[in-house]
Amino acid sequence: MPTASLIAVGTELLFGQTVNTNAAYISEQLQLLGVSVLYHFTVGDNPGRLKQTIEYAFEESDIVVTTGGLGPTQDDLTKEVLAETLGVPLVYDEEAMARLTAIMNDIGRINFTENNKKQAWVPAGAAVFYNDAGTAPGFALEKGGKTAIALPGPPREMKRMMLQSVIPYLSEKSDAVIYSKILRFYGIGESALETALLPIIDGQTDPTAATYAKEGECAVRISSMRRTKEEAAAAVDAAVRRAGELAGDYLFSTEDEDLPQVVYEILRERGLTLAAAESCTGGLFAGGLTSIPGASEVFDRGFVTYSNESKIALLGVRPETIECFGAVSGPCALEMAEGALSRSDADIAVSVTGIAGPGGGGAGDGDGGGKPVGTVFFGIAYNGKTEVRERYFRDRGRRVNRQVCVLEMCDFVRRKILEEK
Amino acid sequence: MPTASLIAVGTELLFGQTVNTNAAYISEQLQLLGVSVLYHFTVGDNPGRLKQTIEYAFEESDIVVTTGGLGPTQDDLTKEVLAETLGVPLVYDEEAMARLTAIMNDIGRINFTENNKKQAWVPAGAAVFYNDAGTAPGFALEKGGKTAIALPGPPREMKRMMLQSVIPYLSEKSDAVIYSKILRFYGIGESALETALLPIIDGQTDPTAATYAKEGECAVRISSMRRTKEEAAAAVDAAVRRAGELAGDYLFSTEDEDLPQVVYEILRERGLTLAAAESCTGGLFAGGLTSIPGASEVFDRGFVTYSNESKIALLGVRPETIECFGAVSGPCALEMAEGALSRSDADIAVSVTGIAGPGGGGAGDGDGGGKPVGTVFFGIAYNGKTEVRERYFRDRGRRVNRQVCVLEMCDFVRRKILEEK
Repeated sequence: MPTASLIAVGTELLFGQTVNTNAAYISEQLQLLGVSVLYHFTVGDNPGRLKQTIEYAFEESDIVVTTGGLGPTQDDLTKEVLAETLGVPLVYDEEAMARLTAIMNDIGRINFTENNKKQAWVPAGAAVFYNDAGTAPGFALEKGGKTAIALPGPPREMKRMMLQSVIPYLSEKSDAVIYSKILRFYGIGESALETALLPIIDGQTDPTAATYAKEGECAVRISSMRRTKEEAAAAVDAAVRRAGELAGDYLFSTEDEDLPQVVYEILRERGLTLAAAESCTGGLFAGGLTSIPGASEVFDRGFVTYSNESKIALLGVRPETIECFGAVSGPCALEMAEGALSRSDADIAVSVTGIAGPGGGGAGDGDGGGKPVGTVFFGIAYNGKTEVRERYFRDRGRRVNRQVCVLEMCDFVRRKILEEK
Repeated sequence: MPTASLIAVGTELLFGQTVNTNAAYISEQLQLLGVSVLYHFTVGDNPGRLKQTIEYAFEESDIVVTTGGLGPTQDDLTKEVLAETLGVPLVYDEEAMARLTAIMNDIGRINFTENNKKQAWVPAGAAVFYNDAGTAPGFALEKGGKTAIALPGPPREMKRMMLQSVIPYLSEKSDAVIYSKILRFYGIGESALETALLPIIDGQTDPTAATYAKEGECAVRISSMRRTKEEAAAAVDAAVRRAGELAGDYLFSTEDEDLPQVVYEILRERGLTLAAAESCTGGLFAGGLTSIPGASEVFDRGFVTYSNESKIALLGVRPETIECFGAVSGPCALEMAEGALSRSDADIAVSVTGIAGPGGGGAGDGDGGGKPVGTVFFGIAYNGKTEVRERYFRDRGRRVNRQVCVLEMCDFVRRKILEEK
């Protein structure tokens, strides 16, 4: 199985101004080609350290993929250092120059400087990858059984080049395929999940199963590397079925879908529409569901009732309910869900009111009634029935607390619809 | 100036399942302490390669910071490998165990497994950093003039530990200070901003100003490294004032605050409350504003009117308006804002209706009237006046398109209130 290392070049990455998202994208693509990624490196625009890193990466792996440092400016040195490290001269590329000139004319760039022309030079013998989304071409260069691949740094340019040029280029070399599935679980912690899945984790070499925690949920990646996709898929699917037997109650997707996506599909398949009444999540549940293209098929409307007055005016929550039980209470959550259902065209309504923190303020920082941060009540109204869920989450900070509430709302809707048949 | 390398540990990073955002955050914090970051490394849960990377990182730098691999599961090996590499035994830490037990009791974890207890062991002689946001403690370990710092992988746990433990720990060693301010701009592109700020960018060695693009906005980092914080701050503040003179119209924060935060403060200072009527953003504006603690002071309520029916029922948009102009239109945006204001207790109401894509569907994927993706109308109602903004954004994909709409709503509210005095 060929191995690869990635080198991201750019001082802005070391300053922390830019997050290196390219590494994850390229790694995922390489894995799918059966290339095993061993290392990610990030270095600044420093020729010495870049050269040293390239040498180290080549000692460790067959393929080295660089991102960044192909641009027109003085500190863009990746191409030069790669060529020098591999002992290959740079040559002038007619087509690169022609494309560069065309782009410059398109954008009416008057100052078409010598710097810009620098981008028309490529290592001798390299397979040049022309850039449809920018000016700097990338390339692949083979030398002594090793392959160097240089890609531009801007994610949009890099992705286009990966899909159009790099993947086809590497596919020809690949003789093994990795097939993976990502299973997602809600309502169980990572170590408990790992314990539950030990039969498919312990001492397994292929397929392998690795758990990892996401915010408020857990995921398991099950992977197999075989000579054909069919063999790998069969091995993975068997393990997926076993995982379902071992921890199925918490499993909500075997296709790496997130909970809002799953809820969207359950609603769409059944032709149901949903309304939401949100206090402490302040619209994040609706925002998450409507992030899915076509959400209007299933999402009717949302009420962000942050203040007590708005709960009363928009949802018909009774003032006495808030007086007696507080805005953060089961009865309030229940009336919010009932109100959202009766004041919408939806088939099902879900509500949330809770204390997101910091401090005791809750229900839109409103009347927390001195309840601790993490106290959240959820209501659902569906099929003439109503139900309340009461949760006491560990305080993980306002942002995560709110995110967990959104997931819990999704889980509540999902389980309610599934149990209804 | 001390040098550092960062090592992110976790096979999920090499699979591309998780983007390594920790490296950027830690790099930024280290820079502020006058520590120069030379390399980022990412390795999998492989003891051999991890050991080799730790050794390489120590050859290259004074400080090595690891993230990840401190958890309870079998493949969490960072602590063990670090201790072995530095030739230090692991010892049982009473307080770590006490805290671990307390957390497990808090969350009523029945299955407090053996692998959980693994987290109570730390290298002998290490300064232990207890984890306020999770179970795995981190630590700093000094050996032969080198410093190893191990932090948990989950960003929230890592950040808390950086702020509470690592920064105080490293501050004592630092002899130079970097002082930085991040200025944030909306409504101007990066290259235009760079041109406007040339006087403080060109040929400046200290303070330095570096622009970078964020989603839908731009930021400029102005940094100075001096012997004292006072000297550095004075140099930076002078450059900040100059930046204000050069591009003040687009500058919304000199404290690295985001637009929702700035809008929150403008509203709070003036004792104003806001209501929002959202179609294509589906609640993201409300969700963003209410992510700020205390948002209930300024945010009254939100209407997520995704369907045409809900625009009519909840906001009183006239059916004729939607028939004649479409749901994605200035008149609809205007009536949405007016409706939100009259149906709330708020002083100001903002609305959005547009086409987030993909495809021609808009206004909650509803009646896009064949308008192109990126066509968005914003309405505002304040002080007895109403105003509409019409925007034709470049299509950058549904997620970013929606994010840009939220920023535009913030900008609209901010400018409206500021111009009103």
